[in-house]
Amino acid sequence: MIFKFQFGKPFPTEAVVAKDQIQDAPGQPVPFVDVKEGESITYQMQPDDLVYGLGQNVRGINKRGWIYSSNCSDNPNHQEDTRSLYAAHNFLMIDGAKKFAMFLDYPGIVTFDIGYTRSDELKITLSDWNLDLYIWEGESMTELVKAFRHMIGRSYIAPKWAFGYGQSRWGYQTAEDVRRVVQKHKENDLPLDSVYMDIDYMERYKDFTINEERFPNFEAFNEEMKAQQIHLVPIIDAGVKKEEGYPVYEEGVEKGYFCKKEDGSNFVAAVWPGHSMFTDFLNPEARKWFGDHYAFLLDKGVEGFWNDMNEPSIFYTEDRIRDVIDEISKLKGKNLDLTELWKMLGLVNGMANNVEDYKTFFHETEVGRLSHEKVHNLFGYNMTRAAGEAFERLCPEKRILMFSRSSYIGMHRYGGIWQGDNKSWWSHLLMNIKMCPSLNMCGILYTGADLGGFGSNATEDLLLRWLQFGVFTPLMRNHSAIGTREQEIYQFQDIGAFRNILKFRYRLLPYLYSEYMKAVLKEELYFSPLAFMYPEDAFASQVEDQLFVGESLMVAPVYEQNARGRYVYLPEEMRMFRLKRDGSLESEVLDAGHHYVKAELEEMVFFLRKGHALVLAEAANRVADVDFGHLQALTFGDEAVEYEYYHDDGYTKDYENPKNWSRLEISGDGEISC
Amino acid sequence: MIFKFQFGKPFPTEAVVAKDQIQDAPGQPVPFVDVKEGESITYQMQPDDLVYGLGQNVRGINKRGWIYSSNCSDNPNHQEDTRSLYAAHNFLMIDGAKKFAMFLDYPGIVTFDIGYTRSDELKITLSDWNLDLYIWEGESMTELVKAFRHMIGRSYIAPKWAFGYGQSRWGYQTAEDVRRVVQKHKENDLPLDSVYMDIDYMERYKDFTINEERFPNFEAFNEEMKAQQIHLVPIIDAGVKKEEGYPVYEEGVEKGYFCKKEDGSNFVAAVWPGHSMFTDFLNPEARKWFGDHYAFLLDKGVEGFWNDMNEPSIFYTEDRIRDVIDEISKLKGKNLDLTELWKMLGLVNGMANNVEDYKTFFHETEVGRLSHEKVHNLFGYNMTRAAGEAFERLCPEKRILMFSRSSYIGMHRYGGIWQGDNKSWWSHLLMNIKMCPSLNMCGILYTGADLGGFGSNATEDLLLRWLQFGVFTPLMRNHSAIGTREQEIYQFQDIGAFRNILKFRYRLLPYLYSEYMKAVLKEELYFSPLAFMYPEDAFASQVEDQLFVGESLMVAPVYEQNARGRYVYLPEEMRMFRLKRDGSLESEVLDAGHHYVKAELEEMVFFLRKGHALVLAEAANRVADVDFGHLQALTFGDEAVEYEYYHDDGYTKDYENPKNWSRLEISGDGEISC
Repeated sequence: MIFKFQFGKPFPTEAVVAKDQIQDAPGQPVPFVDVKEGESITYQMQPDDLVYGLGQNVRGINKRGWIYSSNCSDNPNHQEDTRSLYAAHNFLMIDGAKKFAMFLDYPGIVTFDIGYTRSDELKITLSDWNLDLYIWEGESMTELVKAFRHMIGRSYIAPKWAFGYGQSRWGYQTAEDVRRVVQKHKENDLPLDSVYMDIDYMERYKDFTINEERFPNFEAFNEEMKAQQIHLVPIIDAGVKKEEGYPVYEEGVEKGYFCKKEDGSNFVAAVWPGHSMFTDFLNPEARKWFGDHYAFLLDKGVEGFWNDMNEPSIFYTEDRIRDVIDEISKLKGKNLDLTELWKMLGLVNGMANNVEDYKTFFHETEVGRLSHEKVHNLFGYNMTRAAGEAFERLCPEKRILMFSRSSYIGMHRYGGIWQGDNKSWWSHLLMNIKMCPSLNMCGILYTGADLGGFGSNATEDLLLRWLQFGVFTPLMRNHSAIGTREQEIYQFQDIGAFRNILKFRYRLLPYLYSEYMKAVLKEELYFSPLAFMYPEDAFASQVEDQLFVGESLMVAPVYEQNARGRYVYLPEEMRMFRLKRDGSLESEVLDAGHHYVKAELEEMVFFLRKGHALVLAEAANRVADVDFGHLQALTFGDEAVEYEYYHDDGYTKDYENPKNWSRLEISGDGEISC
Repeated sequence: MIFKFQFGKPFPTEAVVAKDQIQDAPGQPVPFVDVKEGESITYQMQPDDLVYGLGQNVRGINKRGWIYSSNCSDNPNHQEDTRSLYAAHNFLMIDGAKKFAMFLDYPGIVTFDIGYTRSDELKITLSDWNLDLYIWEGESMTELVKAFRHMIGRSYIAPKWAFGYGQSRWGYQTAEDVRRVVQKHKENDLPLDSVYMDIDYMERYKDFTINEERFPNFEAFNEEMKAQQIHLVPIIDAGVKKEEGYPVYEEGVEKGYFCKKEDGSNFVAAVWPGHSMFTDFLNPEARKWFGDHYAFLLDKGVEGFWNDMNEPSIFYTEDRIRDVIDEISKLKGKNLDLTELWKMLGLVNGMANNVEDYKTFFHETEVGRLSHEKVHNLFGYNMTRAAGEAFERLCPEKRILMFSRSSYIGMHRYGGIWQGDNKSWWSHLLMNIKMCPSLNMCGILYTGADLGGFGSNATEDLLLRWLQFGVFTPLMRNHSAIGTREQEIYQFQDIGAFRNILKFRYRLLPYLYSEYMKAVLKEELYFSPLAFMYPEDAFASQVEDQLFVGESLMVAPVYEQNARGRYVYLPEEMRMFRLKRDGSLESEVLDAGHHYVKAELEEMVFFLRKGHALVLAEAANRVADVDFGHLQALTFGDEAVEYEYYHDDGYTKDYENPKNWSRLEISGDGEISC
């Protein structure tokens, strides 16, 4: 049973949809934690307590030892001391003598001090006290997560083709650029299922437009790509360009669908298109209106999108930049001192994403007019909801790929996320690994990081090692920023090593897709920390750099430069496979315990759990060419095992059809029968 | 034999002082590498080649896989993709089928592309081709380093008290603040030998002044501290305040000792004191003049200094900030677009340390007038040389503590370095570990990082783990920046855990000091990579997070949050000691190979090599109270071993006295006889 405590007048975020396990507990004492209304929620942590959850955040799977803030922020330079990333995921669990979970359904800024100020204290503070607090106990982390996942509803399901490899770069300026990417992958025998179109495809960064000069006759171009089984996936930005004659702008103004300032005038701030409007996604009508615009691209044959800049990111507001320029102008001809330097630096660098600006515009919500700051963390969620609800209306039979940068719990029903703008850093590869299970706990299953890193310059070995982990993430996309080193695989020397890794992704797809779908439909984790799989194993909870992928597979990626292997902890005897550079697999059985395992740069190791099987298809260069019906299996030991295999057409939504499920009987030597 | 090749007209940096092993090789082909004069120096790397050296830089002990630049930079936000830190250390070694070393004695910008652009190519490029290239081969990395250390001369020797624990913070505003620091350490029974005085002690940041209001009667205050065996260590900044009536400024102007612009007027740029002058440290007269000013503090009883801001760091030049303000003023009232935003951000954030500014001022050197950019990397070196040469004149009998932020090879003879302004990041703890042996290769032995991190906010566990490594660094200083969380030990909860670690530092001092002095006098490493100790061990070269400290001791610090131990590789059987929180040591013998070793937060493990001993004193709270003459020893095995023990008075310079050396005979049970 989940206990719900209401404080003040919570905003109806609609994060929670299944209420069958929830019990309102008004006036009763909140269990486990010490709530001082208006002040804080605290919990005295025991030395061995672990803290899980918080979705998209820096640091470990165990969140203990830092202070985090739910305050959706565009921060491409995030470090280990960053408190807020692009999302707000207010779910956490305590694993110790007491085992319980909390969800703070609250769209304002929340701060989680998890042993930062005092190493033994968890302290949660909020901007104001209008929230729904859900709290429940359980026997295990798995049970606690399952209860949460049930209450927040089924996670978004991506089309099967979106489990293929995607190539992206901010900087593909023309259809020719895209054609070259496809061609180069083809020439080099590199699998590919999608090319992402960043802001360059639009006409001066206007949503729901296509630059006709650079992408002439887009519909035909999309058809040309589809003929090669390549999906074009355009970006949609949160800001709508302010431009007379641009229908989206004019219509939004006319209908009053953009966020307004206190005086009723439209709020204008600069993002990629320059001066832009921000759709009031908390107004159901505005949401519907914005969502309907996706038809512009759907009608041209597009089957997937990514929603960006929806924290929302703001480069500057008109008011602020004017003030900044005025202030700096006053310094002209003056004898300057350092105070003025700091002031100038503060003014200029404080223009972007300024919290004060978030207070100056408003939403017309179901519960009345609200300042943006009160509901800041819902903006990206509701932009993606706008899209998801529109897809249901516009093409109800078909799955559309959708993932977002910003998110809040609830959004997981409408799309996945990529893990934000990151860097070509080994430390961000490691963060990618650690973030995956935390996101899964919060319902976000379709996810992956920008492989190779978005900002900064990738080295060949970094991209190769990152892809070796990316092989296991549902979203597998290589993405980089304009101005950085080009990082398509074919830009590097040892293309064969990359090819081998990519091809193996396609061989794994039957397993990966089956496990993803099972995790969605059964409300379970796709990526599990070892501690969740082996709760009795005292060491497992310390393992932060190995994950289970589904039920059979444990991964232990190499994330250190020049390493030729790594340490791996096996909670039980497992069969280790090593993918060699010639595509062959060699294996050996390793005992439970600690091992140093070799993995040369072009090699990848993974581990099969006893009593389980890993089903594989033949390699292919497109998801559509993978034969999900003819499988091989990797097994461990002589005894036959069963594998619960989920498979569907991957495009429609007949998830409940019993025909999608089969129990494969797999003999010790890998023979499969149903 | 070291071969020397001259290109163009190299600037006489005086990095190289011992020429007995050097052979000029004019006109001969350069061995090992491919030199295209005016273009590049390249080396085709084999897959197994390792690259060592480069002193103060990010990333691994093995530098392969990134592009580094020698271009002294004030960069407190450095990441793994940072190319230049505070120093320029152009020494590198290749370890593979061919083993050789190179030193590029060149004070301009050098770029080392070590497998970044092409994973198999090392490519060095220079701003111009006036350099001395030294290149030599050797049987081992140890031999290559020794030859280099010999040619660049004996490393700086710090006074013994400077091996005690030091507490520092930018923000100790008054003598009272300093007294409180000392008092709090005393109350909590925490060892302490020095308190560092950051820029706050000066009168409006003017070098060689003391703020009389905040530090009244400094001489008496220093005496008061000395009576408690506390050394005050003031900072000296590179920039000299431009202020009428300030004697240092007026004298420097009068004598023409400051750097000038092309038109002969003095170059002025803003740093902490506001508008400031930059002493022409490449002019021997100016160097002498600046150095003599240290007498102002020496005469007041000060025995140590740190030289800061000497890359040189520049906040802005008068010309540039005026231009920036003019440019921004032009935007007033205009309809702005993003181009103008980027321009504004670029202008404002490009004011500090702008390379164009480094071209606008000049040095009067022994070889004539030179633009600063040509000799940029020598500035910090020669500031510290100014101090070191002055100390030789002013107090030739006495060791004065001196360490610098910026450095170039050659400076190691005059002072140590701290490892620059860092952050309270676990990744910077790891970087600290990896940087130590690379600095030692370049002659810099007196070094340590800002323990706990300078910028950002430290957590208790980070500081404790960092101190557990800091126990082994010659400079052991806790330093933090104003505005960050206070990080003196007594700010945290478990003071006992810190006390235990600190006390152990003082127990280790006989060994640490002996090994430091041996490394200096024998031109060897104090911190060694495992690969250098076990060149036949193929795995040792992959170990980046364990180090030898001297001949007997291997350390394997824990640098991950929430970890309760770590993996350790033993190249041979060793005796592991675990310092428990009660101060006791427990030990066990571990076989050669891979181990997972437990080390709870408050515990520290270290490893003793077979056939070697670790000498320990009784704990004390001041270096002066450590009894270096009555030692205990930790040993491994029943057989007696010898330990070569160096000990001197720690304050004078009678290094060559044979009485400083003894051979301790140590029985298997730790009994010591000489």
